[in-house]
Amino acid sequence: MGNADYVYPSTNEYRQCAHPVAVPPPQPFFKSFKNSLKETFFPDDPLRQFKNKTPSRKFFLGLQYFLPILEWGPRYTFQFLKSDLISGITIASLAIPQGISYAKLANLPPILGLYSSFIPPLIYAMMGSSRDLAVGTVAVASLLIGSMLGDEVNATENPALYLHLAFTATFFAGLLQASLGLLRLGFIVDFLSHATIVGFMGGAATVVILQQLKGILGLQHFTQSTDIISVLRSVFSQIHEWRWESGVLGAVFLFFLLLSRYFSKKRPKFFWISAMAPLTTVILGSLLVYLTHAEKHGVDVIGNLKKGLNPPSFGDFVFTSPYLTTAVKTGMITGIIALAEGIAVGRSFAMFKHYSIDGNKEMVAIGTMNIVGSCFSCYLTTGPFSRSAVNFNAGCKTAMSNVVMAIAVMFTLLFLTPLFHYTPLVVLSAIIISAMLGLIDYEAAIHLWKVDKFDFVVCMGAYIGVVFASVEVGLVIAVYIDENTNEMNLFPSSKQQNSVIILWCKMQVAISVLRLLLFVARPKTFVLGNLPNSTIYRSVEQYPTTNDVPGILILQIDAPIYFANSSYLRERISRWIDEEEDKLKSTGETSLQYVIFNMSAVGNIDTSGISMLEEVKKITDRRGLKLVLANPGAEVMKKLNKSKFIETIGKEWIYLTVGEAVEACNYKLHTCKPDATNEDSQPWNNV
Amino acid sequence: MGNADYVYPSTNEYRQCAHPVAVPPPQPFFKSFKNSLKETFFPDDPLRQFKNKTPSRKFFLGLQYFLPILEWGPRYTFQFLKSDLISGITIASLAIPQGISYAKLANLPPILGLYSSFIPPLIYAMMGSSRDLAVGTVAVASLLIGSMLGDEVNATENPALYLHLAFTATFFAGLLQASLGLLRLGFIVDFLSHATIVGFMGGAATVVILQQLKGILGLQHFTQSTDIISVLRSVFSQIHEWRWESGVLGAVFLFFLLLSRYFSKKRPKFFWISAMAPLTTVILGSLLVYLTHAEKHGVDVIGNLKKGLNPPSFGDFVFTSPYLTTAVKTGMITGIIALAEGIAVGRSFAMFKHYSIDGNKEMVAIGTMNIVGSCFSCYLTTGPFSRSAVNFNAGCKTAMSNVVMAIAVMFTLLFLTPLFHYTPLVVLSAIIISAMLGLIDYEAAIHLWKVDKFDFVVCMGAYIGVVFASVEVGLVIAVYIDENTNEMNLFPSSKQQNSVIILWCKMQVAISVLRLLLFVARPKTFVLGNLPNSTIYRSVEQYPTTNDVPGILILQIDAPIYFANSSYLRERISRWIDEEEDKLKSTGETSLQYVIFNMSAVGNIDTSGISMLEEVKKITDRRGLKLVLANPGAEVMKKLNKSKFIETIGKEWIYLTVGEAVEACNYKLHTCKPDATNEDSQPWNNV
Repeated sequence: MGNADYVYPSTNEYRQCAHPVAVPPPQPFFKSFKNSLKETFFPDDPLRQFKNKTPSRKFFLGLQYFLPILEWGPRYTFQFLKSDLISGITIASLAIPQGISYAKLANLPPILGLYSSFIPPLIYAMMGSSRDLAVGTVAVASLLIGSMLGDEVNATENPALYLHLAFTATFFAGLLQASLGLLRLGFIVDFLSHATIVGFMGGAATVVILQQLKGILGLQHFTQSTDIISVLRSVFSQIHEWRWESGVLGAVFLFFLLLSRYFSKKRPKFFWISAMAPLTTVILGSLLVYLTHAEKHGVDVIGNLKKGLNPPSFGDFVFTSPYLTTAVKTGMITGIIALAEGIAVGRSFAMFKHYSIDGNKEMVAIGTMNIVGSCFSCYLTTGPFSRSAVNFNAGCKTAMSNVVMAIAVMFTLLFLTPLFHYTPLVVLSAIIISAMLGLIDYEAAIHLWKVDKFDFVVCMGAYIGVVFASVEVGLVIAVYIDENTNEMNLFPSSKQQNSVIILWCKMQVAISVLRLLLFVARPKTFVLGNLPNSTIYRSVEQYPTTNDVPGILILQIDAPIYFANSSYLRERISRWIDEEEDKLKSTGETSLQYVIFNMSAVGNIDTSGISMLEEVKKITDRRGLKLVLANPGAEVMKKLNKSKFIETIGKEWIYLTVGEAVEACNYKLHTCKPDATNEDSQPWNNV
Repeated sequence: MGNADYVYPSTNEYRQCAHPVAVPPPQPFFKSFKNSLKETFFPDDPLRQFKNKTPSRKFFLGLQYFLPILEWGPRYTFQFLKSDLISGITIASLAIPQGISYAKLANLPPILGLYSSFIPPLIYAMMGSSRDLAVGTVAVASLLIGSMLGDEVNATENPALYLHLAFTATFFAGLLQASLGLLRLGFIVDFLSHATIVGFMGGAATVVILQQLKGILGLQHFTQSTDIISVLRSVFSQIHEWRWESGVLGAVFLFFLLLSRYFSKKRPKFFWISAMAPLTTVILGSLLVYLTHAEKHGVDVIGNLKKGLNPPSFGDFVFTSPYLTTAVKTGMITGIIALAEGIAVGRSFAMFKHYSIDGNKEMVAIGTMNIVGSCFSCYLTTGPFSRSAVNFNAGCKTAMSNVVMAIAVMFTLLFLTPLFHYTPLVVLSAIIISAMLGLIDYEAAIHLWKVDKFDFVVCMGAYIGVVFASVEVGLVIAVYIDENTNEMNLFPSSKQQNSVIILWCKMQVAISVLRLLLFVARPKTFVLGNLPNSTIYRSVEQYPTTNDVPGILILQIDAPIYFANSSYLRERISRWIDEEEDKLKSTGETSLQYVIFNMSAVGNIDTSGISMLEEVKKITDRRGLKLVLANPGAEVMKKLNKSKFIETIGKEWIYLTVGEAVEACNYKLHTCKPDATNEDSQPWNNV
């Protein structure tokens, strides 16, 4: 551009007292590449503790890394055991009825809920790094398994195949979870934003509660769909089928459960009341049925539960088409959702107790427990919020409480299963409803609305989508799906329903990603003014007391300059200059001479961004304005240097702070204004 | 948290001389919503010129907005006409042979290339805002149309249906383009980054050149695939079929064309040599064939071209299944690619001549010309780079040069088509090759490597993907596609090929998006130090001369804090604190007391980000460190205020600049250190 050779004497004179802007020392390509790989996949620097250690020590540390029990085991005390014993028994009393209930939700034999509370907690106790996580099955994943597998195989017509598919799906879920951890891709879970999770969980809880109306009202026939409209239609079209015995029993137990929850919430010391309540209702309900023979009067009961520990199931995996695809898909989706819950729960409690857990390590632990579990008749487990909260409140000290729970469940499996014969299903429905009500976090939604409207929209989108899926949304989307699926439609309504839910999940992720893209595509730019009696320059909007600097327009760009926003920024900057010139013209003030870009917030720039700056430079030159940069960062300076833009703009027009840039411009404005304008106005003639 | 009520006397004393950080004045929700909608869709503020005008003036301005000819038409002078006449005739001489060549590339009748250079330029002349864009068909879109429509209908077996599909696809392309413009969604085009376009164009040019080997060597049978391996195998497996007459003719003409291009490049004044060269080769080639009767010796010729203007084709649209889907898909993809080229070309030349064009307006113009064109036997047109460059070099002044070209083409259609009877196809191949060589911009690729490695990877990814698609990539992806498409496979190899290309395009977009996401998911954080003899704090890496501030760790976060990066930031910040404490311990310096976050570059924060800050606050509290914020922006302050985080951290711990924050910390460090540590170290007990 020729500008680089030109010397601006007056500015150079001034520059002697200004700070130079540094181009960072060049780094070899592979070193910087290695660094950014490390930042992307190992932000927590897990190898840090291995530095300067002997090989045998390194081996032991490595073993400890994968089996944290080796770390806390040797330090385990009797005091700890006492606490873990209490909390372990408490969560077992919750785990048994919950496990049976959720297994029913997944259309699986109730005994699977007990199996799943035996093996996985033992694995987790060895490998997990959370001290408070209580392992078990979860409602949302159970419902999804039931819905997704139900599309392929009817659970009542072909229970064996359905069961085997559930094991296969769990196996793939575990495989995915462990791989994500091993490949250190844990950050994928982060893309499920807090708002999405609040909305999704609330929606799923609503759906689960609605489904329980079947159990509470003792209905025999019920819709396959999960949306609110179909369910309510199904309920109210069968008013004459409602069983009042079942309904009354359900309402009483639900009231009792909610009361205990409310009481425990008011007095945290009595947490055990709400923890014991489910087992109490189960015992009371079973006794009641046993004594009144209510099972013959419209109150359905669990029936026979097989005695004995988990039978092995690794021979049952189904790896043949067309079932494999379904199993893989179900495993992927439920695996991710379960993982997100487990990690969020682990992290929350770690935060309370001031220790930190390693997300990737947790993923490996949760994945391994599901892989091993799927080989021994367990279905998908993770760390449910409700059970972990009880564990935490019961004062657990280590993962040993999971072992205690597993032993208690083992004892139940070996000796106590016959006692559940008379347990009424309506009690299980009441237990599920009372647990699910806690997941509808309306307070969080209100908080989102107050703090961040966009987050609220995302949250409500997720909620409404899950609750109404296949009706409102379905009307639009189902047509599209219909046209695009040529697969055999065995269970049309449910299959569509299911596709709609998956599509909705995809859309949720898309909305979240879109938000990030919009942030990058439409970065904020704003005018800076001078804070009175200082050399500080801040946004005119945020600080209304700032003063304009005559003849100088100071713009701050609030995002990296990338291909996605460079066209926008060019237009927006032109508009800022137009507006400023219009304003000055109308007030008759000093005409505009300098445009300063504050680059403090521009973290990076790509080649499209540099082209944009070159174009802006031409635009300003043409209008007789001088372009000045303030405080470009290391990455930006490196790239501006390599692309020779520094020579184009002139090294003497890059300043370390806005203050120094303004000072230099003012200096020039009052000493050699006419010169500068004439000489610099049309350098594009040199191109 | 209770902290808000606690008064820090010493700090408050200091604060009297520090600048307060302002929470921006609250805005009504709908006002701020309206503002952000405006910034997203109307960054150029198109309604600005309508302010304070009379209704009739407003109507005229609105008409001018959509028909820019009303703006420049009245000011049109004879001087302009002279320039436009010369450039119009020059581009016509290029348009005729290029149009015929590209139509062959799309497997369409050659005459369509002439039709497409008649109607669309007239529409564009009225509606377009670029003065330099020369309208016509383009090679890449032609190739894609040929490949995508060829999957559904065989062009030689069912030419009428194929032709009608081409019109339908063009219609939908136009519809999409115009809608994007009217809905002001032009920024979608921006997501094709410069690097992607360089790579994609280079790859497409390579593919097109390879395809021309068929014409140059006079081969009758040729592979349907476009990847380099299939094409070379097809060429070299037929060595005995090569026609040397055709080959020699092709080589000579290509040499002549390249020579003229080279010469014109060296001496820009003789641009017309390269502009006229194609027509010259067509005339020379036709003469040669006519005189030597080479058409009987292995040199294929165009044959009969119908005389007369464009016949109407709006009755030919195919809106019936299964063709409609193909037409819509083809229209969408080619429409977007053509649009990107047209807008990029228009923008580049506008930049040279220092006027600006409106992307959304251009889209409406290009879309309209394709909608109208598709009704009159034209296929997809846009502003090709080569033709527009010739137009620019020939000194065009306004879009009138398009009108001149259209009239010249009309004249050709009415009277001169018989002259093309003897034009050898090999000449057309040579013309295409010479035009395509200009699109392989290896210099741009080298520049990308130098300035931005990631951009280079994106570029090479696009290039290699297009050139090798269906071999290397195909091996991996084809399996996937095979399993997932149950549609009828009429032309298996070509269909797969085509799917692979589309998939590759999607992957390219995904890579670009991934880059943005990675930027947001892994923001830079770095330690700041004090520039000697100043109150300026800058990155220690960029400015190695900076000094540490004893007892204070200053971190800068270089991106908005969103759900996608909040977990990462929490881990990374913990690691910074660990490392700093380790360092201080090993050197035995003052222990760490304060952690200052410079929030200058944090443009926004969401609820997940605020939770992260709350967690960091707990972590620092637990370690006995005090968390201090410096310079949070308007958006951030607004949300911190609403979520009560300001009260959690304490208003007195938020400073306007890093300098003031450090000063306050130092003040406190040296006056009341022991107190501060004890009192503040465990405020989480108050939770």
